[in-house]
Amino acid sequence: MARSDEDRGAGLAERLATTRELTLDLAEPLSDADATVQPHPDASPAKWHLAHTTWFFETFILRDHVPSYRLFDERWPYLFNSYYNGEGERHARPKRGMLSRPSLDEVRSWRLSVDAALQSALPQLPPEVLQLIELGINHEQQHQELFLTDILAAFAENPLEPAYGAADQPACYATEPLGWIDGQVGEAEIGAAGSGFAFDCERPRHKTLLAPHKIANRCVTNGEWQQFIEDGGYGTPTLWLSDGWDWINREGVDRPLYWHDDGSSFTLAGRREIDRAAPVSHVSYYEADAFARWAGARLPTDAEWETAFASADALVGNQLDRAGPALPRPGGGPFGDVWQWTGSAFLSYPGFKPETGTVGEYNGKFMSGQMVLKGASCATPRGHSRPGYRNFFPPAARWQFTGVRLARDA
Amino acid sequence: MARSDEDRGAGLAERLATTRELTLDLAEPLSDADATVQPHPDASPAKWHLAHTTWFFETFILRDHVPSYRLFDERWPYLFNSYYNGEGERHARPKRGMLSRPSLDEVRSWRLSVDAALQSALPQLPPEVLQLIELGINHEQQHQELFLTDILAAFAENPLEPAYGAADQPACYATEPLGWIDGQVGEAEIGAAGSGFAFDCERPRHKTLLAPHKIANRCVTNGEWQQFIEDGGYGTPTLWLSDGWDWINREGVDRPLYWHDDGSSFTLAGRREIDRAAPVSHVSYYEADAFARWAGARLPTDAEWETAFASADALVGNQLDRAGPALPRPGGGPFGDVWQWTGSAFLSYPGFKPETGTVGEYNGKFMSGQMVLKGASCATPRGHSRPGYRNFFPPAARWQFTGVRLARDA
Amino acid sequence: MARSDEDRGAGLAERLATTRELTLDLAEPLSDADATVQPHPDASPAKWHLAHTTWFFETFILRDHVPSYRLFDERWPYLFNSYYNGEGERHARPKRGMLSRPSLDEVRSWRLSVDAALQSALPQLPPEVLQLIELGINHEQQHQELFLTDILAAFAENPLEPAYGAADQPACYATEPLGWIDGQVGEAEIGAAGSGFAFDCERPRHKTLLAPHKIANRCVTNGEWQQFIEDGGYGTPTLWLSDGWDWINREGVDRPLYWHDDGSSFTLAGRREIDRAAPVSHVSYYEADAFARWAGARLPTDAEWETAFASADALVGNQLDRAGPALPRPGGGPFGDVWQWTGSAFLSYPGFKPETGTVGEYNGKFMSGQMVLKGASCATPRGHSRPGYRNFFPPAARWQFTGVRLARDA
Amino acid sequence: MARSDEDRGAGLAERLATTRELTLDLAEPLSDADATVQPHPDASPAKWHLAHTTWFFETFILRDHVPSYRLFDERWPYLFNSYYNGEGERHARPKRGMLSRPSLDEVRSWRLSVDAALQSALPQLPPEVLQLIELGINHEQQHQELFLTDILAAFAENPLEPAYGAADQPACYATEPLGWIDGQVGEAEIGAAGSGFAFDCERPRHKTLLAPHKIANRCVTNGEWQQFIEDGGYGTPTLWLSDGWDWINREGVDRPLYWHDDGSSFTLAGRREIDRAAPVSHVSYYEADAFARWAGARLPTDAEWETAFASADALVGNQLDRAGPALPRPGGGPFGDVWQWTGSAFLSYPGFKPETGTVGEYNGKFMSGQMVLKGASCATPRGHSRPGYRNFFPPAARWQFTGVRLARDA
Repeated sequence: MARSDEDRGAGLAERLATTRELTLDLAEPLSDADATVQPHPDASPAKWHLAHTTWFFETFILRDHVPSYRLFDERWPYLFNSYYNGEGERHARPKRGMLSRPSLDEVRSWRLSVDAALQSALPQLPPEVLQLIELGINHEQQHQELFLTDILAAFAENPLEPAYGAADQPACYATEPLGWIDGQVGEAEIGAAGSGFAFDCERPRHKTLLAPHKIANRCVTNGEWQQFIEDGGYGTPTLWLSDGWDWINREGVDRPLYWHDDGSSFTLAGRREIDRAAPVSHVSYYEADAFARWAGARLPTDAEWETAFASADALVGNQLDRAGPALPRPGGGPFGDVWQWTGSAFLSYPGFKPETGTVGEYNGKFMSGQMVLKGASCATPRGHSRPGYRNFFPPAARWQFTGVRLARDA
Repeated sequence: MARSDEDRGAGLAERLATTRELTLDLAEPLSDADATVQPHPDASPAKWHLAHTTWFFETFILRDHVPSYRLFDERWPYLFNSYYNGEGERHARPKRGMLSRPSLDEVRSWRLSVDAALQSALPQLPPEVLQLIELGINHEQQHQELFLTDILAAFAENPLEPAYGAADQPACYATEPLGWIDGQVGEAEIGAAGSGFAFDCERPRHKTLLAPHKIANRCVTNGEWQQFIEDGGYGTPTLWLSDGWDWINREGVDRPLYWHDDGSSFTLAGRREIDRAAPVSHVSYYEADAFARWAGARLPTDAEWETAFASADALVGNQLDRAGPALPRPGGGPFGDVWQWTGSAFLSYPGFKPETGTVGEYNGKFMSGQMVLKGASCATPRGHSRPGYRNFFPPAARWQFTGVRLARDA
Repeated sequence: MARSDEDRGAGLAERLATTRELTLDLAEPLSDADATVQPHPDASPAKWHLAHTTWFFETFILRDHVPSYRLFDERWPYLFNSYYNGEGERHARPKRGMLSRPSLDEVRSWRLSVDAALQSALPQLPPEVLQLIELGINHEQQHQELFLTDILAAFAENPLEPAYGAADQPACYATEPLGWIDGQVGEAEIGAAGSGFAFDCERPRHKTLLAPHKIANRCVTNGEWQQFIEDGGYGTPTLWLSDGWDWINREGVDRPLYWHDDGSSFTLAGRREIDRAAPVSHVSYYEADAFARWAGARLPTDAEWETAFASADALVGNQLDRAGPALPRPGGGPFGDVWQWTGSAFLSYPGFKPETGTVGEYNGKFMSGQMVLKGASCATPRGHSRPGYRNFFPPAARWQFTGVRLARDA
Repeated sequence: MARSDEDRGAGLAERLATTRELTLDLAEPLSDADATVQPHPDASPAKWHLAHTTWFFETFILRDHVPSYRLFDERWPYLFNSYYNGEGERHARPKRGMLSRPSLDEVRSWRLSVDAALQSALPQLPPEVLQLIELGINHEQQHQELFLTDILAAFAENPLEPAYGAADQPACYATEPLGWIDGQVGEAEIGAAGSGFAFDCERPRHKTLLAPHKIANRCVTNGEWQQFIEDGGYGTPTLWLSDGWDWINREGVDRPLYWHDDGSSFTLAGRREIDRAAPVSHVSYYEADAFARWAGARLPTDAEWETAFASADALVGNQLDRAGPALPRPGGGPFGDVWQWTGSAFLSYPGFKPETGTVGEYNGKFMSGQMVLKGASCATPRGHSRPGYRNFFPPAARWQFTGVRLARDA
């Protein structure tokens, strides 16, 4: 880092402002009621995302480090703490959809008030607090993605099928043939290096061993997924993990989430014809794993993916630049369109240390029962991801933009 | 009925207009988001009540009897049919809270449009369709009461405890001593007579036999309920029906719904001190039955209640006259404050005939697993109830204004 | 009662011995393991029935009224109390199938020991304790019926389809044409009169009013039920109570319990061809009610049934005389083959008083959410039932021998 | 392998006979009813273990490779297939406790018949079928351990607390001080090498990288666990994985399974005082992980454990030699007393290939949502485990003999 601390603070202030503004832009097409609905217990209302990201800054920056600051409303932290036990009791997650108050406009006022206080305090804050702001920006970017996937889930529950926004129909596009990239073999380093921002779970950078393998040059497409369906993939038990087989039978799963049986699927741009050339999205780990077995392949490991795309430019690809209906598109690279399930469980790296203080609850306590996803999706704010990034979800989750990149032993 | 049909139509038009207007008034204090929230699967969003009552008129009057009428929106009947199988598939009841669209304002527009069409059609409609309008008015009054109890349930889920409206604190009031009225003995007639409006389940009027009994001169008060609690009523299994004992233990019930442990309770006027002189409300049949056993009494039967108050003026009492926070008050009579649980199951009267057509699904199919309640509550639109009225709810329901009047064998 | 107390005691001793012996006979074909299995939470293991009926006598007679008596095993009352809260804590009902110990033989030894103590004590017991023995006999008869329906439920869970016993194939039998008996009209008396044994819920005898009606001369047959199925009865929502429609859809019910789709059904005598002339059995109240509506009829009320068969000989009919596979047969009268659902809720008669002491928990606390059944079934010990008898089960229960007799308004 | 195939076959025949006999011995203390009870859906009845292990040999050896063989009973494979979809439909797992038939004696007869057929066929079987017998022996050993843990679970449900067998009280024993062994660093090999028997999931042997670390010289003791409890371990959310915290609160977990609050615990030898010097057992992964965090340590990885004890003699330790009540004892080494949770998810090794044919369903399809355990327990048949052995259970499972060995970064 050659920049002076002052420069750094100035850049941070701008990035903070930009990030906070994007969240407001995302809420622009929504009514107060749209922003209040909680489609299922794992998803949150749009308004809640606006409020929770604000609570994060108000709590860990303003309350903790700006002595003169007074809480905007003393009753709201109880409502908008997500899961930080260090911050005390909180409103039950499955009840977030009960909060018609505060209104969307009241939450917007809170945001503006907190933003003003942050910008005013920023020049005086010491470096370790600036790091918390950096964390807050990255935290808010995560919620921007969740905002979009949760509003998609909410609108999908409405038989009127409201569109979040309008999008062009995709241009005709021929699918690139599936090719295999030779993976790195032997000792390799993965994880976050240097002083740039990374979440605690990406550290420490460490060596790992890679067996000979190949990784696909692109993601699995909707067209290929249709072949899997037509070949009876969802009805063949030997393709499935035992838990996955139980899950598809219990839940009646026989296609990606949001697919209808008339060749269309519900998207942020409303109901659209399924684009056979675009990457399949909204599939669970169980489905990704079964598809890979059907294809005579497997999912890549966390390390295989990361080493394959360590030099790829994470800023390139179909990611989120401005508010609007995110959609996977054909022809993209590793970063964008869909997160890619790996066959690696989300566990700590050797020598992992959680952050100190309440923010130490950020990632470590979720290291159980979840699988790592790599890359970025069409709903990931550009600049948020990187090769070492470790996204994670439980194996049955599929309301995110989650897809499949194949690998195989070489 | 000495009035001419024309007079009758004119009176009906006015009552229709008044009723429809009250519903809009009830929604006045609510935001779009408030009106969208569904607090639990048995309750509905406020907006849904506005829309469903409109659907009732649009479907059974305008669509069926006004040839030139075009549906306001062809997709909405699917959303706002409640339970009429004769009207086809419908949106699942527990998912009503997912409907952020149509907005509250859109639903208001629908109401105005349907109201205009109704008033314009009314002079031409034949008597049997006027009867359906009469049914629609009574149906809408039922939903006005549900509107208030459901919004109370919704606001109770919000830790901010929003008040639906403001109400004065009750004047100091000494509880009237409990007295016993001698009940009628031997043969008696109950049920709806004559041509005035009554729901199908109130007919036919028929004879019944009454054993010697007494009925209380007033409802059980909050103060008396506190004694029941202090005496260990919720912890004494011999006071309870077996199902009731299981229910309080499974659900952790140890006081009326909305009571807090600091002597306050949540109401439509926000959190207030419990008024010891007012009738207890928001208790289930199980609790009412256990209280009665504890008091050495029992609940009255449907017929005992009806004969005791056959000559009482059902228009007198603390009922709903205009939009505002309904609250039980001390000192009332049989009609008002709280519905009163009886010990009678909601079953058909001898010779019961459901209405023909889809509206025949109105009451008959609910004659299973529910108990009859008599009287009226503070949320019942004045004029809606009568001595023969049979309200009904399952024995564990308590989000309505439900209380207790005792009886005993003589 | 002209008989002297001594005579009465002698007759009682003999009936006690006979009843106790029949229970042992019922267990004769079972292995220890057969007698341990609990097929579902509402049913009990056969061994548990043997033990619980013994616990009843040991507790309420020997322990309470024979000072010198010592409990056979001090730990067993906890295991074999059914639901008497007055007797303290007990083993959870859904866990009864965990009790591989005590063994069936140990329970048999307990039975013999208690029987000997009872017979030895009997001559000295005062009349009010003899009444408790009478209650114990009737209680044990109820468990004899449950023994058979529960073992049928247990064997039905085993893909090997074990037969409890062997039974002849029914002789060819033409179904009697359905006829209608004119019901009594106006004032009538129902309920238990005199000093003969009756359960508390059958008292007091009291007057009721009957509207003009007719009642069927026989029960609905399997052949008629097949017509109901073929006519789409299980798929027509307007035939069903709302709760019933939800229930059949949630549980996937489309035929009587134990019916297979090849025209056979599972019985205590193993899998057998369905006898079209025999009364349909193992149907719920919901199904009975829907069938009646389909047939243009309704279910009789409790009082209609009782007055219709007040003079019928309750000792005549296909009831249980000795251990063996009970089966409904064609051609029977009101008492036998199947219990008959009424349209009456199981509630207290006017002036009802539960027994004093712990046995007062016998019936009263179940007066919620259940419907009355009349008559007797092929598994009811002969002599147990009578016209005023009130059996009761929840509306979805169908593992008992429960069938349908129609009625209609006249 | 220097031994000739003939020698190998002879040794195999003897090991087969010994293994099959031990299973029968394990069932010796049980009644037919004891052997029928299923304590919870994850556990199986003792009789089912006897039958399922026999089904394995009958199906994959006799039916598939001995042309003249006729099934003992054609209906039984449906009952006793565990999870092999390749073998078709099967009895639902949670319903295994419904099978009072076939009886324990009938299952014993089946065992003897299959054993005789196996021993008679063995000399003619080709090497690849001998490998299946080897698999069957190891498979049966796994079920011997499950037999004991499942019967412990079954007896624990019985308030009479039956003891499976008698055991001496432990001699007084001072706990060895906790010490730390330096772990291997850098490149290391793990997994099964050579031609000796190993399950598919232990292969292929491959290199891995180890970061500097230390591993404890012994398991965590009951005494240490009591300190964790007294220090409020079960009430401190920051010690727990998020899923674990939800689990202990939902299930009310505040101590190891089978511990009572009087300092005793239920064991195969009945209720006994907790031995503070013995390894804690019957704790879940969630508890193990929380304990480690409380102790300032962590769980070892799969590879750390395996390299630490690669040269330990897996035949030494408190393991199962003959039928009797297995109990953890103080002072043991890595193989015996309790399986030790690792922090590694149960996933495939690089280059993993499932077996071909139906037995390929053995391990691979369970590679989701489970954690690896290493070592062996007091219920593991001696000779069954080895350093590369990978046992696995879901993180909330605790009815196995599961304990904790700590590790930490160096």
